[in-house]
Amino acid sequence: MNFGSDNQAGVSAPILAAITEACASGVASSYGNDVWCQRAEQQLADWFGQPVRAFFLTTGTAANCLSLSALAQPWQAVICHAQAHLATDESSAPEFFTGGARLLPVPTASGKLLAEDLERTLAHLPSAPPHTLSAAAVSITQSAENGLVYSVDEVSALSTLAHQHGLHLHMDGARLANAIAALGCSPARITAQAGVDVLSLGASKSGALNAEAVVFFNLELARHFEHRVKRAGHMASKSRLLGAQFCAWLQNDHGVAMAAHANAIAQQLAQVLQGHPSIRLAWPVQASQVFAVMPAALLAQLNEAGVQCYDWYPSSLAPGFELHEGELPVRFVASWASTAADVQAVAALLQR
Amino acid sequence: MNFGSDNQAGVSAPILAAITEACASGVASSYGNDVWCQRAEQQLADWFGQPVRAFFLTTGTAANCLSLSALAQPWQAVICHAQAHLATDESSAPEFFTGGARLLPVPTASGKLLAEDLERTLAHLPSAPPHTLSAAAVSITQSAENGLVYSVDEVSALSTLAHQHGLHLHMDGARLANAIAALGCSPARITAQAGVDVLSLGASKSGALNAEAVVFFNLELARHFEHRVKRAGHMASKSRLLGAQFCAWLQNDHGVAMAAHANAIAQQLAQVLQGHPSIRLAWPVQASQVFAVMPAALLAQLNEAGVQCYDWYPSSLAPGFELHEGELPVRFVASWASTAADVQAVAALLQR
Amino acid sequence: MNFGSDNQAGVSAPILAAITEACASGVASSYGNDVWCQRAEQQLADWFGQPVRAFFLTTGTAANCLSLSALAQPWQAVICHAQAHLATDESSAPEFFTGGARLLPVPTASGKLLAEDLERTLAHLPSAPPHTLSAAAVSITQSAENGLVYSVDEVSALSTLAHQHGLHLHMDGARLANAIAALGCSPARITAQAGVDVLSLGASKSGALNAEAVVFFNLELARHFEHRVKRAGHMASKSRLLGAQFCAWLQNDHGVAMAAHANAIAQQLAQVLQGHPSIRLAWPVQASQVFAVMPAALLAQLNEAGVQCYDWYPSSLAPGFELHEGELPVRFVASWASTAADVQAVAALLQR
Amino acid sequence: MNFGSDNQAGVSAPILAAITEACASGVASSYGNDVWCQRAEQQLADWFGQPVRAFFLTTGTAANCLSLSALAQPWQAVICHAQAHLATDESSAPEFFTGGARLLPVPTASGKLLAEDLERTLAHLPSAPPHTLSAAAVSITQSAENGLVYSVDEVSALSTLAHQHGLHLHMDGARLANAIAALGCSPARITAQAGVDVLSLGASKSGALNAEAVVFFNLELARHFEHRVKRAGHMASKSRLLGAQFCAWLQNDHGVAMAAHANAIAQQLAQVLQGHPSIRLAWPVQASQVFAVMPAALLAQLNEAGVQCYDWYPSSLAPGFELHEGELPVRFVASWASTAADVQAVAALLQR
Repeated sequence: MNFGSDNQAGVSAPILAAITEACASGVASSYGNDVWCQRAEQQLADWFGQPVRAFFLTTGTAANCLSLSALAQPWQAVICHAQAHLATDESSAPEFFTGGARLLPVPTASGKLLAEDLERTLAHLPSAPPHTLSAAAVSITQSAENGLVYSVDEVSALSTLAHQHGLHLHMDGARLANAIAALGCSPARITAQAGVDVLSLGASKSGALNAEAVVFFNLELARHFEHRVKRAGHMASKSRLLGAQFCAWLQNDHGVAMAAHANAIAQQLAQVLQGHPSIRLAWPVQASQVFAVMPAALLAQLNEAGVQCYDWYPSSLAPGFELHEGELPVRFVASWASTAADVQAVAALLQR
Repeated sequence: MNFGSDNQAGVSAPILAAITEACASGVASSYGNDVWCQRAEQQLADWFGQPVRAFFLTTGTAANCLSLSALAQPWQAVICHAQAHLATDESSAPEFFTGGARLLPVPTASGKLLAEDLERTLAHLPSAPPHTLSAAAVSITQSAENGLVYSVDEVSALSTLAHQHGLHLHMDGARLANAIAALGCSPARITAQAGVDVLSLGASKSGALNAEAVVFFNLELARHFEHRVKRAGHMASKSRLLGAQFCAWLQNDHGVAMAAHANAIAQQLAQVLQGHPSIRLAWPVQASQVFAVMPAALLAQLNEAGVQCYDWYPSSLAPGFELHEGELPVRFVASWASTAADVQAVAALLQR
Repeated sequence: MNFGSDNQAGVSAPILAAITEACASGVASSYGNDVWCQRAEQQLADWFGQPVRAFFLTTGTAANCLSLSALAQPWQAVICHAQAHLATDESSAPEFFTGGARLLPVPTASGKLLAEDLERTLAHLPSAPPHTLSAAAVSITQSAENGLVYSVDEVSALSTLAHQHGLHLHMDGARLANAIAALGCSPARITAQAGVDVLSLGASKSGALNAEAVVFFNLELARHFEHRVKRAGHMASKSRLLGAQFCAWLQNDHGVAMAAHANAIAQQLAQVLQGHPSIRLAWPVQASQVFAVMPAALLAQLNEAGVQCYDWYPSSLAPGFELHEGELPVRFVASWASTAADVQAVAALLQR
Repeated sequence: MNFGSDNQAGVSAPILAAITEACASGVASSYGNDVWCQRAEQQLADWFGQPVRAFFLTTGTAANCLSLSALAQPWQAVICHAQAHLATDESSAPEFFTGGARLLPVPTASGKLLAEDLERTLAHLPSAPPHTLSAAAVSITQSAENGLVYSVDEVSALSTLAHQHGLHLHMDGARLANAIAALGCSPARITAQAGVDVLSLGASKSGALNAEAVVFFNLELARHFEHRVKRAGHMASKSRLLGAQFCAWLQNDHGVAMAAHANAIAQQLAQVLQGHPSIRLAWPVQASQVFAVMPAALLAQLNEAGVQCYDWYPSSLAPGFELHEGELPVRFVASWASTAADVQAVAALLQR
C-alpha cells in the first residue's frame, strides 16, 4: 500500500529492458551523442509534431532550473504558483541555476495559475527599473502539485497573455503524462500548440528509472543550453541510459499508459477516502494525486497498518480551506505500480 | 517643495566641512585604513556603548545585501516584511550577494514584522531539508518603509524569538536616525541592546553625501566580511570620504538632529494633508515619511505647482486599505533640508 | 578497437545485474535513503577502513565541483595541476559550484603536482588580503590525466604540506581504481591514510554505468553537503541506481579488477606503439592511458582502419617535450572492455 | 616622500571645488539622473569624439568587473596579462560579477599583452565545447601595472585580432590619463579609434576622490548594464558626487595634466634611482610608476627615513629577470601630488 510518492516505485518492464539493452551494447558515443539520445530526440519531435531540441537529464530539479536559466536574466523574475514544486521543494536551486533570478510565487484560490492570476500579478508588479525586477517568464506545473489538471484553454490563455507581455512560458511536466492521460489530448495540444516555450518532461514518475528532458519548442532559446548543462555537471558521460529510457517511454505511448493507470487508481482511492466520515478531499482528483484531510489519529492508524502516505504542508490547501482541530492534510500518490488491491486494502482498513 | 526623497537632498554644512577637510588632507592610507575610518569606528562603538566592527560603504543596497551575505548560506532564507526595501527596491541584489539565498517576504496588517508575524511564519514554513529552505535570519527596517517606527519592546520581542530559533536579526537602518529621534532613546537601546546582530546604518538620508555602514554587534559574524566587501568592489581606495562623513554625522548627534528636524516637518505636513477633505493618510506618521492617498487629479495639480512627491506602489498600503476610484497612494519624504516654508507652500496650494 | 575513452564502454555484467535487480525491486525510499545507498556507504567505510560520509552522484564534474564547494570559500583558490580535468574539461563548473572561487593551475615538468610544486606555488602566491586570494585546498587526480600514478609517499608528502598550510586535500579519483591496481596497495593507503580529506570516487570508468561518489574522510567537511547536492539538482529520486552500482563495484573489488585489466591492456598497447619507428610515448604508462605522439598521417590511417583514439591537447605534453613537424599528441584509453585482440589488431595495422 | 600609491593622495583643488559645489547645490535627482552625471557623459562623448554610454562608479574593481560581466557569459573566459590588476588584486571579483567566467592570465616577456601573445594563446586554447571554455574578451591595462604604455599600434593590432576571433576588447584605464599624457595623443586615438569596446576609466588616481566610469564605445554592449550596476549595489543615490568629479577632471584636460605631472616626477625619480649603484630598474619607466630592485636593507633604510614605497610581488618582474641574493622588487608610484622636492629628498637619502 505505497502511496508515498511515484518516485519511490521501481522501473516498468519495457523500460528496464531498454536500460539493459543499452547497458549491454558495448561501446557507444558519450555526452549525449549516442544513438539512443538521438533517437529519443527524434521520437520527441514526432510526439510533439514539430522540431524540438531535447536535453536529457537525471533529475526534475535540474530540468526545471536549467530551463529557467535559459529564460530569465539574473535580474529578472519568474512567476509561478505559490505551491509550485520549483518554489517549495527544490531548495534554492532556481536561484543557483539562474545566477540569482527571483521566483514570484502567487497563491490562488483555484489552485492553478490562470491567465487572470497572471494579469493581476503583472498589474501589481512595481515597475521602477532597475530598482525593481521585471518578469521574464511564467512557470506552471502540469499536472499540478495538488493533482489538478490545466485544460488546453487554460494553458493557451495563459501563454497568450504571457507572450503579449514578452514573457516566456515554462511547463514543469514532471507528471505531464498524467495530464495527457486525463485530458485525452495529444501531447502537442497541451504543450507546443498551447504556447509552451520550454518543457521539463519527466518520465521518472511514470515508469522510468531517472529520465527527465528539457524540451525546447522555441528553438532559439536552446542556444547556449549545452554550456549550462555541462557547467552544472549534468552532462552524463554514458548518456545512453537516458536516451534509452525515453525511447521506451515514448514507444506506443508507454509512459502515458502508465500514467493513465495511476490516474485510475487515484480515482478509486478518492472514492474510498471520500466514503469515510472523517475524511474530506482537499482538491478535486484529476490526475494521480489525492489530497485529503483527516484526523491525525486516523493517519497514524493507516501508517501503522502499512499505508505509506505523508502528512503534507498546510500551505498546500486552498486559501480559505479550514482545518478542523486535530486534522492534517495528507497526500496520496498513485503510481504505475499501484494496484487495485492496494486501494482495496486501504478500504478494508478504513472500514474497521 | 521637494518631498520626493531624502536621498535627493544635498549635504549638511558640518558634513560638507568634514568632506572638504579630508579631501584636502594630503596623503592618507587607503582601503579603510585611514584615520577617519578608524575614528568613525571608535565613535560608533561609543555611540552604541559596546565594541563593534564597522565597514563603511557607499550605498544602502550594498550595506543591506552584504549584511545578509554574512548571515545566510546560499540554501537558506531571510524573512522580511513584504514591503521591505530589500525585497522591493534592490533588484535581485539580495540573491547576488548571498550567492542565491531567498527572501521570504511576509505581508502584515500592522505594516511591521512583529514577533507574532515571525512566529506564524516559522510555524508554516515547510521543513523537509534539504528540499525546503530553512530560515537563517530576519531583517527589519527601522524606521520602516511606510514611516512606522518599531518600539524597543517590539524589536526585543522579535530578536528574542529569532534567537530562540537560531536566527540572526538584521536591521536596515537607512533611516535609523529618524527612529532614534522619534523614540527619544539611545542608539544602543534600539539596536544592540534590543538584540540586533548586524545593522545597516545609513547617514546619506540624514545629512551625509553617501555614507553607509555595516555595524556588527555580533563580532563573530564579521569574520570574513572584508573579503565580501572587496570582491563586491565596495572597498573604496580613498575611504577617508566615508570615515570623515561618519565622524561628522556622529559628532554631537548631528545626524539624529537632522533626522529629528525631518520628523518634525513630516508631522507638520501630515497635519496639512489630513486637513484636506480628499486626502487620507495611509499610515500613522511616526518618522519622516508621510503616506497619503488622494485623487490622481489632485496629485497632478500639486506636482504641476512644483510639489515633488511620488505616486507609490499600491502594494505598500495595508492589506484591507481600500483605494477609491481615482485615488492614488502618494509618498512624501521630509529631509534635513525640508523647511516649514515648504509645508506652508503645500498648505497654500491645498487651500486653493 | 575502441581506445577513445573508458566512458564509452558499456556496463560490466555484475553491475548490470545489480542495476536490474534494484530497478525490479519495487517500492524503495528515494533521495539517497534507500537500502542500496546505505549499504554502499557502509561498504565504502569498510573499503577505506574508517567511517566515511558518502554522497552518490551521476557525473564526475558534479563530484569534483561539489567537493571543492565544501572546501573553498568564494574568495579563495584551489591549487591544481595545469592539466587537471577540473581545470581543462569541466567548463566553468568549478566556479559555478563554489560561487566563484578560483583555480590556480600549476604546470609542472613531472606531470604531477608534487609537494615541491605546492611549496613553490605557495611561496610565490601574493599575499595581500583581501585584495589577493588565499589558497584553501589542493586537488590532485589519481591516476592523473596523463596516465601517471602518484605514489603513497607523494600523496602523503603533499597532504602533510597542505595541512601545514591549512589547506585541505581533494583527490579526483575518476580513475582511482586504476591507481589502486597499479600500486597494489589498499584503497585506504592511497587516500585516507595518505591524508586525503575528500575524494571524488568514480566507478563509471571501470565498469559502472554512471556512478560517482563524494567520499568524506574528514567528516566535519560534509556538514552542509546535502544542501549543496540538492540545490545543484544532483539529488536523484531513485537513488537506488547509484547505490546498487557501488555495491556491485565494491563487491570483491570488482571495480579494481576491471581497472587492473584495463591497465594490463594499456601496457600491451604501449609496447606495440613503442615498437613503431614513428611513434614516441609522451608519458610513462602507469595506469590505463597511453599518450603517444605520431605523424598526423599515421593517426589518420589508424582512425580510418577503425582504431578509435583522439588527437589530444598539445598542452598536455610535458613542458620541453618537442613536437616534430607533422606530429600530433594522441590519447589511447584502455577500459575494462578492451581486449588483447584489440591490441593485436592495432599491432597488425602498424606492421603494414 | 609618499610614493606608496596614487590612491593615497588627496583631491586636487579644482575637483574638490566641484565636489563642494555639487554637495551644496540642494535638491537634485538621484541614481545617475542628476545634471552632473548627464554633463559628464556628454563631456566624455566630446572627449572621445563619438557617442558613448557612461556609468559612474566608486571603485576600479567595480568598473573592471562590471565591464567584464557585459562581455562574457559565465561559461566563457577573458584573456588578460598575468600581472593584470584584475587577475592579481581584485580578489575573486571577476568571477563574482560575471557569474563564474574565468580569467586566462598570460605571462609575457614584454610585460604587455600584445597581438602575438593573443594569437599564441588562442592557438593553444583547447576547443572542445561545451567541455572547454571559449574566450569572449581580452582585457589590457593602460598604462599597465608595471608602468609600461601600449602604443596606438599595439592596441590597434590587438583589437583587430580580437575582433577577428569574435572577442571584445576591454581596457582597464585606471591610469589611462598617464598613458594619454605619455603618448601625447588624443583620448580617442588610444581607445575608441584603436578598437576598444569598453573602457574602465579612472579619475581617482589622477586628482579625483573616487570617480571611475565604465565607458561603452560599443553601445549595444551597454544594453542591460544599469541592471548589473543596481544589483551589485553600485548605483549611488547622490550620484552628483561622481558626475561632478568627472566634469572637473575632464575640464581643460585637468586629469591628463595631473597625470603628466606624475609622469614627469616618475622620470625624475627613475633618474635618481638609476644613479645608485645598488639599484636596478625592473621595467622602463613610461608613465607614473617606477619598478626597481634593491637590497632589502636599502629599502628598509629608505622606509625608515620616511620614503613610502612598497616591496612588490616577485611575480611582477619580467620572466628571466633575476633577483640577486637579498634584493627585493620595489614599487614607487608618483601622483599628481608628488613634488620635485620629494624626489630630491630621496636623492639626498641615497647619496648618504
